[in-house]
Amino acid sequence: MEVVQVLHMNGGVGETSYANNSFVQQKVITMTKPITEDAITKLYCSTYPEEIAIADLGCSSGPNTFFVVSELIKVVDSARRKISQKSPEYQVFLNDLPGNDFNTIFRSLSIFQYKLREQLGPGIGPCFFTGVPGSFYGRLFRKNSLHFVHSSYSLQWLSQVPQGLESNKGNIYMASTSPPNVLKAYYEQFQQDFSLFLNCRSEELVDGGRMVLTFLGRRTDDPSSKECCYIWELLAMALNDMVLEGVIEEEKLNSFNIPQYTPSPAEVKYEVEKEGSFSIDQLEVTEVNWNAYQNETDLSDAFKDGGYNVAKCMRAVAEPLLFSHFGEAIIDEVFRRYREIVADRMSKEKTEFVNVIVSLKKA
Amino acid sequence: MEVVQVLHMNGGVGETSYANNSFVQQKVITMTKPITEDAITKLYCSTYPEEIAIADLGCSSGPNTFFVVSELIKVVDSARRKISQKSPEYQVFLNDLPGNDFNTIFRSLSIFQYKLREQLGPGIGPCFFTGVPGSFYGRLFRKNSLHFVHSSYSLQWLSQVPQGLESNKGNIYMASTSPPNVLKAYYEQFQQDFSLFLNCRSEELVDGGRMVLTFLGRRTDDPSSKECCYIWELLAMALNDMVLEGVIEEEKLNSFNIPQYTPSPAEVKYEVEKEGSFSIDQLEVTEVNWNAYQNETDLSDAFKDGGYNVAKCMRAVAEPLLFSHFGEAIIDEVFRRYREIVADRMSKEKTEFVNVIVSLKKA
Repeated sequence: MEVVQVLHMNGGVGETSYANNSFVQQKVITMTKPITEDAITKLYCSTYPEEIAIADLGCSSGPNTFFVVSELIKVVDSARRKISQKSPEYQVFLNDLPGNDFNTIFRSLSIFQYKLREQLGPGIGPCFFTGVPGSFYGRLFRKNSLHFVHSSYSLQWLSQVPQGLESNKGNIYMASTSPPNVLKAYYEQFQQDFSLFLNCRSEELVDGGRMVLTFLGRRTDDPSSKECCYIWELLAMALNDMVLEGVIEEEKLNSFNIPQYTPSPAEVKYEVEKEGSFSIDQLEVTEVNWNAYQNETDLSDAFKDGGYNVAKCMRAVAEPLLFSHFGEAIIDEVFRRYREIVADRMSKEKTEFVNVIVSLKKA
Repeated sequence: MEVVQVLHMNGGVGETSYANNSFVQQKVITMTKPITEDAITKLYCSTYPEEIAIADLGCSSGPNTFFVVSELIKVVDSARRKISQKSPEYQVFLNDLPGNDFNTIFRSLSIFQYKLREQLGPGIGPCFFTGVPGSFYGRLFRKNSLHFVHSSYSLQWLSQVPQGLESNKGNIYMASTSPPNVLKAYYEQFQQDFSLFLNCRSEELVDGGRMVLTFLGRRTDDPSSKECCYIWELLAMALNDMVLEGVIEEEKLNSFNIPQYTPSPAEVKYEVEKEGSFSIDQLEVTEVNWNAYQNETDLSDAFKDGGYNVAKCMRAVAEPLLFSHFGEAIIDEVFRRYREIVADRMSKEKTEFVNVIVSLKKA
């Protein structure tokens, strides 16, 4: 029994799903495609298994939910055709928190399967989909039952807000003005969570099984660096303005902190090596512009508005957290202000998310 | 890929779940408990597996969803305690059609798991829950991946309305006035569906794996017998009255038929033996009163009204079918009339559902 999940529901990302930042995420998935392709190809070509069990952790319920899985299946299908091997059976586990909208996923499943079959043609093996509700900071699957684990833009979410952040006044995340004990509390929560994640997955993956994990992360060693904290500092600005105007109580803001940690590649590497179940095949860092639509053509005016896009993306992520702490009344106003602040900064400086991608093999 | 599911969605029980008839169903599950207990005990005690994968097919999303699974886990836990064996890990697959409300199931999962752990105490192994959307008249699981399959009050639903029912005018199901070709068409659809079901499950179950299946059925050889058809004949009466009054078009009624088949024990036995993958351990027939609340005390007046109870139960089952064929406008009126007719008959005669329960072992 996973009683630990009851706790996660309150402390972590609330009762919604992990990753809803859909356009940015799709860019990131496309960007990490070479690493993912390489990993699933190595997995398949090492033993040509008759069945492949794939888990997508933090699958959400948007347009990206099936995107990753279909890419993985296409890669395997292409590899098995090259050597005229019979298609394996696919078992796909779609995981997210219990508050995720699994109904929407399940109702679009038959259309997805129909399209995939059309694209890949006859000979593709059966593909069994299941939904797995629960926190990935705990066991989700039977021992030795998975071949491949994918997770994109979910693992930066902590299982809970770290303890001992009382001194992080005026901030809602790590910031340049955060005292050292705040940075330490965040880092320790990340270590504890990621180590538990690795340990659970190592029980669930078969020997030789692989994982490709993408974190929202940072390049530098400094966890309060602008490259990872700026997007939250701007939200804190909006909230602080509202405190000054008496709309939000100061105490309320002081007790609000985002349960996220954006690790550096070195921190990811250190944790993997310390936990010991996995070897690192690849470890990379990339960037994606805050406004993922920036280089797209044929967009409506609304989508050309970077402040709008970023505020919308961040709202999908942050709204459940703000809602449960501050209540519904302030939400629209917070994001109106946030949009203005973000638009202003984007017009003056280069603003990017940093992604840390690690490809692991069960040792 | 299971393209077959796309078809099932239209022809079969619509896009809802299989079994919503909750109070009757709970009575039936309790009634069949000795058979289910016997089967899961035999399964566990034959090999003392370290993990048990259980599938509940047609799980719905009501109060019964976790009822069966918790009973099964309790039986295994009791058996393993007697011999001081370590608890197995449990993998539970909850299956229903993609239109079933899996969100509700998933959101009540942590409370269920917490309660189960409290009831069973420490030592109970981890229990992994997944939702599996899709028709059970097709493959749903990997080869050799299940130990135990349970299905209650779902398998009487056919994958589609049988072809060639044009001559079944004025009826909505098999009836004493149905021509022989209608009875034949229904029976052939049952044979085809149940045979496919057995074949799929035999691929998915491990050797020695077991199934306990409960059908809404009948005792007699005559498929148009009152014991299984009467409940639908009364609904047909309500509809025919509305045709006479010009509220429903006669043509519309003539083209409406319920995709159900309530088999006899002999028909179940014949199909199992013909398909050949399973041996029959037990085959039983029981009855449950139409008004499952009949012998309950402490009920509000509404629940004491047998016509109300039965019409409510049947509405949960039949409404999606009527809705998609006749539209929303007539629904309330149909069930108002149905309730009156049912109440009248229940006051004059003994009215029971017949249940056919079969316990199978993969040969």
